[in-house]
Amino acid sequence: MSEKIFRFLAEQRPDLPCLVVDLDVVAGKYRALAALLPGVGIYYAVKANPAPEVLSVLAGLGAGFDAASVTEIRSALDAGGRPERISYGSTIKKRSEIAAAYALGVRLFAFDSQAELEKIAEAAPGSRVCCRIRVSESGADWPLTRKFGCDFDMACDLMRRAGGLGVDPYGMMFHVGSQQTKPEQWDAAIEKSKQFFDRLRADGITLKMLNLGGGLPAHYRTEVPPIERYTQEMQESLARHFPEGLPELLIEPGRYIVAEAGIIQSEVVLIAKKSAKDEVRWVYLDVGKFSGLAETMDEAIEYVIRTPHDGGPAGPVILAGPTCDGVDVLYEKAGYKLPLDLAIGDRVEIFAAGAYTTTYSTVGFNGLPPLKDYYI
Amino acid sequence: MSEKIFRFLAEQRPDLPCLVVDLDVVAGKYRALAALLPGVGIYYAVKANPAPEVLSVLAGLGAGFDAASVTEIRSALDAGGRPERISYGSTIKKRSEIAAAYALGVRLFAFDSQAELEKIAEAAPGSRVCCRIRVSESGADWPLTRKFGCDFDMACDLMRRAGGLGVDPYGMMFHVGSQQTKPEQWDAAIEKSKQFFDRLRADGITLKMLNLGGGLPAHYRTEVPPIERYTQEMQESLARHFPEGLPELLIEPGRYIVAEAGIIQSEVVLIAKKSAKDEVRWVYLDVGKFSGLAETMDEAIEYVIRTPHDGGPAGPVILAGPTCDGVDVLYEKAGYKLPLDLAIGDRVEIFAAGAYTTTYSTVGFNGLPPLKDYYI
Repeated sequence: MSEKIFRFLAEQRPDLPCLVVDLDVVAGKYRALAALLPGVGIYYAVKANPAPEVLSVLAGLGAGFDAASVTEIRSALDAGGRPERISYGSTIKKRSEIAAAYALGVRLFAFDSQAELEKIAEAAPGSRVCCRIRVSESGADWPLTRKFGCDFDMACDLMRRAGGLGVDPYGMMFHVGSQQTKPEQWDAAIEKSKQFFDRLRADGITLKMLNLGGGLPAHYRTEVPPIERYTQEMQESLARHFPEGLPELLIEPGRYIVAEAGIIQSEVVLIAKKSAKDEVRWVYLDVGKFSGLAETMDEAIEYVIRTPHDGGPAGPVILAGPTCDGVDVLYEKAGYKLPLDLAIGDRVEIFAAGAYTTTYSTVGFNGLPPLKDYYI
Repeated sequence: MSEKIFRFLAEQRPDLPCLVVDLDVVAGKYRALAALLPGVGIYYAVKANPAPEVLSVLAGLGAGFDAASVTEIRSALDAGGRPERISYGSTIKKRSEIAAAYALGVRLFAFDSQAELEKIAEAAPGSRVCCRIRVSESGADWPLTRKFGCDFDMACDLMRRAGGLGVDPYGMMFHVGSQQTKPEQWDAAIEKSKQFFDRLRADGITLKMLNLGGGLPAHYRTEVPPIERYTQEMQESLARHFPEGLPELLIEPGRYIVAEAGIIQSEVVLIAKKSAKDEVRWVYLDVGKFSGLAETMDEAIEYVIRTPHDGGPAGPVILAGPTCDGVDVLYEKAGYKLPLDLAIGDRVEIFAAGAYTTTYSTVGFNGLPPLKDYYI
């Protein structure tokens, strides 16, 4: 709950819908994590929210950056990020994009396939490469599927080839899935990582870096364990599996850093029943799946919603966005209830909306503008 | 297959990915439908592709426009559309949006709930209103769900109130679902419409217009019946159910008009297996769910894909987009096969991509730009 954001909304009355992000919360989240994970490089996942204001705050605090594209690399550099603290984390890059990143000074590249390793070797010779290994994502509310990461044996094979191709087999990474609700998921991945380190050491290759990936959650409608549980699990697991000393460690939080810093304010456009027999009201907001709330897909992320009438009697609703698209229904099964006094024109707030909202917004589906955003 | 588009791509070599739309095909589709449905007002669904070039061609041919927002209304007017040939078809409008449309001269408004009717009556007094009734969408590849349309009894009740509120109970509409593959679906909706006309006539209300909605399909990977089957089914159904004479008729094609006019050209970014045991190649394109191919959601729309190696031996693939998002997988279950000779850097074409692509594109998810589009 950010008083600063509510003051801004009350005083400025911006056109709705809009997202307002409190940069103090962003900085606070970064500092908290840095304090809990001393010695671990915190590389902000730019894709969560690439606003220049967010990147500047984080660069000023010493953050590194995990970039998904050359555009994100440029944004990080423009905000004061240093190229040696940028990881080009996408495993799906055009050769021209790798070359552009290399020209900008980036020297750490992720991959999970032979062809990608070869592209990096050609377009970014001498760089450090980091192999992404597939691990279990059980417990993640936004899993990343088999799209990313190769299996253990293939990863070993590719790392063995890296040196011969002219790149440095520097480290490995995993990702336990976005909005990971089970802190213990990191342990199995860290154990597997140690096996990977050991296997390559037997081949004479000493990996220097382990990237713990993303996955740290934000607090949405469902309770998640406190961040301290996550960092403690990681640290205990690392100490257990790497008793002879830790490699260089990175972590790539995005959602954790910026989600809770942001609130979307939205206007209720329509409240309707479509039949005299309907028990449930349809509540249509002016923001939906195509203007920022894409992560309501399959009702994966359940946002906390505040109305001016909270505390009064409430009833079940189906929440939907404003477009003429049947897919643009936010919550039908999640069991949302909203006050019976809720009225058309009311302003409602959607909490923890600072991550994965603005950039998922379409350019103008149905002629509706992209989500406006303010950073204060 | 548009030679004009391929010539443009070969000569201009635009940055990829991009969409190229052949305006002659747009005009041809409109003319074909107008010839098959004489006397029916063809109101292009602007949301399918709101490019000024498309709207200008259609306005020049005499099309009306179905608009989802004030922005779309302005686009239609800018392109030469006439306000008396615009239907504000969204049933979810802010009062301020209704007022803005009214100020622009629009006098035909859709609704499906009491509150929306009241908003129209207040903000657009004297206008014609059109009640949207819920009908079966069985057979639609992109159904519109219960989000739109009220039931028969509620629709009757609301139309009875319309006159007293100061608006004209002018007509009714239904929508059998987007990409409707079963022409016979219109018959049940038209029969229900006639019952609606009769019920209101018994109350002394004579409806003047029936809007047959959207739903006319484009030709994707799966065969659909020819357009003549659809128009013939509609005409026979109308003659059967309205033997005493037809009301004013509208139809709102979007996809049918513009989908087949457009081709996306995309570059293969990566081809990979992630395990020595993998039988299936992952093929990653530079366009995905967040840069135009949103309708691959749940593999709903299956695009025809052409490669430079078609005709040679092929094998199964999983097709995915370029972002670091696990959701950005295009086809995993649909059984796509692509040539074994397909290589990184190859240019592939995605057919019938002129509708529901550009506007679904995000503003810049992962730092990737929105889909570029050309109209020739």
